[in-house]
Amino acid sequence: MGTVTSPKQDRSRATRQKLLQAAVSCLAEYGWSGSTVAVVAERAGVSRGAAQHHFPTREDLFTAAVEHMAEERSTALRELVGGEGVRTTHDIVSAIVGLYTGPLFRAALQLWVAASNEPSLAPTVIALEARIGRESHRMAVELLGADESRPGVRETVQGFLDMARGLGLANLLTDDSTRRNGIVAHWSHLIEDALSAP
Amino acid sequence: MGTVTSPKQDRSRATRQKLLQAAVSCLAEYGWSGSTVAVVAERAGVSRGAAQHHFPTREDLFTAAVEHMAEERSTALRELVGGEGVRTTHDIVSAIVGLYTGPLFRAALQLWVAASNEPSLAPTVIALEARIGRESHRMAVELLGADESRPGVRETVQGFLDMARGLGLANLLTDDSTRRNGIVAHWSHLIEDALSAP
Repeated sequence: MGTVTSPKQDRSRATRQKLLQAAVSCLAEYGWSGSTVAVVAERAGVSRGAAQHHFPTREDLFTAAVEHMAEERSTALRELVGGEGVRTTHDIVSAIVGLYTGPLFRAALQLWVAASNEPSLAPTVIALEARIGRESHRMAVELLGADESRPGVRETVQGFLDMARGLGLANLLTDDSTRRNGIVAHWSHLIEDALSAP
Repeated sequence: MGTVTSPKQDRSRATRQKLLQAAVSCLAEYGWSGSTVAVVAERAGVSRGAAQHHFPTREDLFTAAVEHMAEERSTALRELVGGEGVRTTHDIVSAIVGLYTGPLFRAALQLWVAASNEPSLAPTVIALEARIGRESHRMAVELLGADESRPGVRETVQGFLDMARGLGLANLLTDDSTRRNGIVAHWSHLIEDALSAP
């Protein structure tokens, strides 16, 4: 038996989803300074009052949006890799790097950089970054089948995720996919060797 | 025989230097939106008119500042590694990663992210990023003694620089040095092996 929700609860959930998605795309497109609650409400097709009912402050809205998107991407990636045909280290490395080249990474980057100049934003974003970082690490370990009880394996995975983040940054202003594909192909071997070394 | 300069030329050069340094620290501290020419002139102790004489537009000032700092850091690193006692791959990897954790990286990051939301800034910053990227790559190849005629060596160096960039991003809001030192120590071995593999 599924959860029973009233039409009103459904509408409320749909409004919340629309706001979260609009917040991520505004952040990716206009940056923090251009992304006010009013701009997001407008894009979501929702009244400003409704937006403020769901998210009392601007910080609430944007951190919830980035966190929500991160969870969705992480679930989607686990399903993708859990399915048929995506099994090689190259496939996994490529899929994880792909997480850092889309709108979610752009939005998160805007929030991180804004927090570096706005002390009021910093504590929330630092906590959010730590949660997303832990979850990304856990996901990478699981997908790569890495055994972290062996010395060096933890650092291999951490360094790979830092490389993925750097590749995301390199893709911010220009399409870096040709260079990136070459790096992903080569580093998949390096990572595979490092994870299987005695 | 050295170049003869007049006191006036010396003063002009000193003013330019002060503006470039003030521009980088304002960018790192206040971000693009908080870094106007007036704010930089104030911090440099220079009149706004003098600032505009040296750099007609805001874009000129900030791209010149990031480029100038990148050249200075690159020269300093070459001298450091060219000197005595900094010879192991670990020393070199550590020194290169260090370039991405200081105020220059913070300033460059602010400029890259601002350019992603401001079409007027994008072309200059894309060209600047390409020049700095090429120079960083050349420097890393030289310092690591990498032979790029061998297959995969180019991608090893590129991926390492992306990792360094990702480590810089991870250090933006919090002191990430403990985690980073572990990654640098471990990846120095992996990179050394990858560069010397047949």
